[in-house]
Amino acid sequence: MLHKTETKEIRGQWIGFIYDLQDKICKKLEEVDGKAVFIEDEWQRVEGKGGGGLTRVIQNGNVFEKGGVNTSVVFGGVTEKMRSQLNISPPRQLAGDAGKEPAKWFAAGLSLVIHPLNPFVPTVHCNYRMFELYNEEDRLVDRWFGGGTDLTPYYLFEDDAKHFHQTYKDVCDRFDPLFYPGFKAICDNYFVNQHRDNERRGIGGIFYEHQRPGEIHDLDFWMKFGKTCGEAFLPAYLPIVEKRKNTVYTEENKHWQEIRRGRYVEFNLIHDRGTLFGLKTSGRIESILMSLPPTVRFEYNYQPKPGSEEDKLLQVCLYPREWV
Amino acid sequence: MLHKTETKEIRGQWIGFIYDLQDKICKKLEEVDGKAVFIEDEWQRVEGKGGGGLTRVIQNGNVFEKGGVNTSVVFGGVTEKMRSQLNISPPRQLAGDAGKEPAKWFAAGLSLVIHPLNPFVPTVHCNYRMFELYNEEDRLVDRWFGGGTDLTPYYLFEDDAKHFHQTYKDVCDRFDPLFYPGFKAICDNYFVNQHRDNERRGIGGIFYEHQRPGEIHDLDFWMKFGKTCGEAFLPAYLPIVEKRKNTVYTEENKHWQEIRRGRYVEFNLIHDRGTLFGLKTSGRIESILMSLPPTVRFEYNYQPKPGSEEDKLLQVCLYPREWV
Repeated sequence: MLHKTETKEIRGQWIGFIYDLQDKICKKLEEVDGKAVFIEDEWQRVEGKGGGGLTRVIQNGNVFEKGGVNTSVVFGGVTEKMRSQLNISPPRQLAGDAGKEPAKWFAAGLSLVIHPLNPFVPTVHCNYRMFELYNEEDRLVDRWFGGGTDLTPYYLFEDDAKHFHQTYKDVCDRFDPLFYPGFKAICDNYFVNQHRDNERRGIGGIFYEHQRPGEIHDLDFWMKFGKTCGEAFLPAYLPIVEKRKNTVYTEENKHWQEIRRGRYVEFNLIHDRGTLFGLKTSGRIESILMSLPPTVRFEYNYQPKPGSEEDKLLQVCLYPREWV
Repeated sequence: MLHKTETKEIRGQWIGFIYDLQDKICKKLEEVDGKAVFIEDEWQRVEGKGGGGLTRVIQNGNVFEKGGVNTSVVFGGVTEKMRSQLNISPPRQLAGDAGKEPAKWFAAGLSLVIHPLNPFVPTVHCNYRMFELYNEEDRLVDRWFGGGTDLTPYYLFEDDAKHFHQTYKDVCDRFDPLFYPGFKAICDNYFVNQHRDNERRGIGGIFYEHQRPGEIHDLDFWMKFGKTCGEAFLPAYLPIVEKRKNTVYTEENKHWQEIRRGRYVEFNLIHDRGTLFGLKTSGRIESILMSLPPTVRFEYNYQPKPGSEEDKLLQVCLYPREWV
């Protein structure tokens, strides 16, 4: 049975990690941008709901047209809505309190989306979180980890795709050789516009969910895995930014980027469970919707020319490939 | 009991009306635009599902940046999904076949969305439709009418709001004095971004649903009401277009229009039942999503200055007013 001091220490460790990572990422992105800086909004949940977040947003930079790097540490009572949406019952008995219903929840995570100005630099998203359930007596009854990082290019550079996937494969392989193939497939199957013949929003990466410390991999393992994945974000993404940020682009390239950004909007507003859960419960709207791209186009029945660079990108979104 | 020939004749009458109205509206909008013309796509439902539609889209005009005027005539077997989404059971017994389950459905309607270039000209949407249910023996078991027209200005001109609402009030009053106040309120409560403190997407109009021919108002009445509302679209909207289309506007005005168009996207993709029903069943995606605005902006926590013209518009979206 875990004591309050132990769970408090674990929460503290994870929270410390996401705050550090937020600082590190924002500092580095500002350096790379060279012009825009992050503005910070600290917010608290309203109507007696616990916790809040630290939203940091960068806009109109040299390199980054819009981006957000957010942390949130939130908690509250388990509602019927959550029970069905999160599929919470029946509870697992981590704490040995057999039969005890989850009564309270706790979640802490970092979530970022970066929309670069230059259409040759891909959009990127990542999210790493810990979720816990407690019973009425504040004893832990369940805990899981989830997260992922995925890339949304507007033009396909195979080298970039390989570098991005290789970075995460290397991280995964240090923990378990089954992770990369499994989490890559989950990612390919998650960021999908089902209403558009299963077109993906990008070329994926890794995604994992409901990973519970257990017999094979303990708490320490999953904490470390989340941290290592989070820390891999900068080395996975920045070399691509540096390589492409000064590429000369045309109005047509920007136009295509805005068309593809429309697909990003469609996915986030129609399908993304995280976004919809936030919108339909009591998340802070502006922090959730910071993920939407700055400028977007929706044109009737826009189709790239077969064989064009635009079409090449579309094909890998329709038919995911193995990059490493 | 209605015979097949009778229901066929009724369907034919309604279909004839929506095709005529589509022609009339497209012709007039092209005249007003003076540059762009509608392109037409005829499509059929796939995988053995019945019917199809006629999608007409105008883009990059002098006056209309993007717009679609679509008709669709579709039918098929009642599925479990429809049964729950449309709340179909238990059936009404229009045809006297007590206890007979609805097995087939039929729907025909016109749907339009117009996004003008000039931010002083409002966006407009309208939709008029007839829905029918048949039993296994092709006998009618239920039929209802629905529709509405609503206005989404970017700047508030009270005269325009009054003209628009007055036109529909006049139409409603010719049929039933209870219609305008009732259907205006339904409209105000439907086009709502609940995730943004119940901000409306615009200043409303009228909206009605599940109106079944019955003892008070017969089939002929509801057919005529739908027709008259549909025909009121041009006189309700065009005088506003003519009045505002040449107003000089700044980059700031266009910027605000694109921010508000973002709200339109949020409503259509997150909340609109029609859009989501189409996307999650087997509608033609490009015909459904023609409603999305051509260029859109999403900025973090954008707030108009209190007391500004932009703020005035926002206030009437937050707190609907009586215009007539």
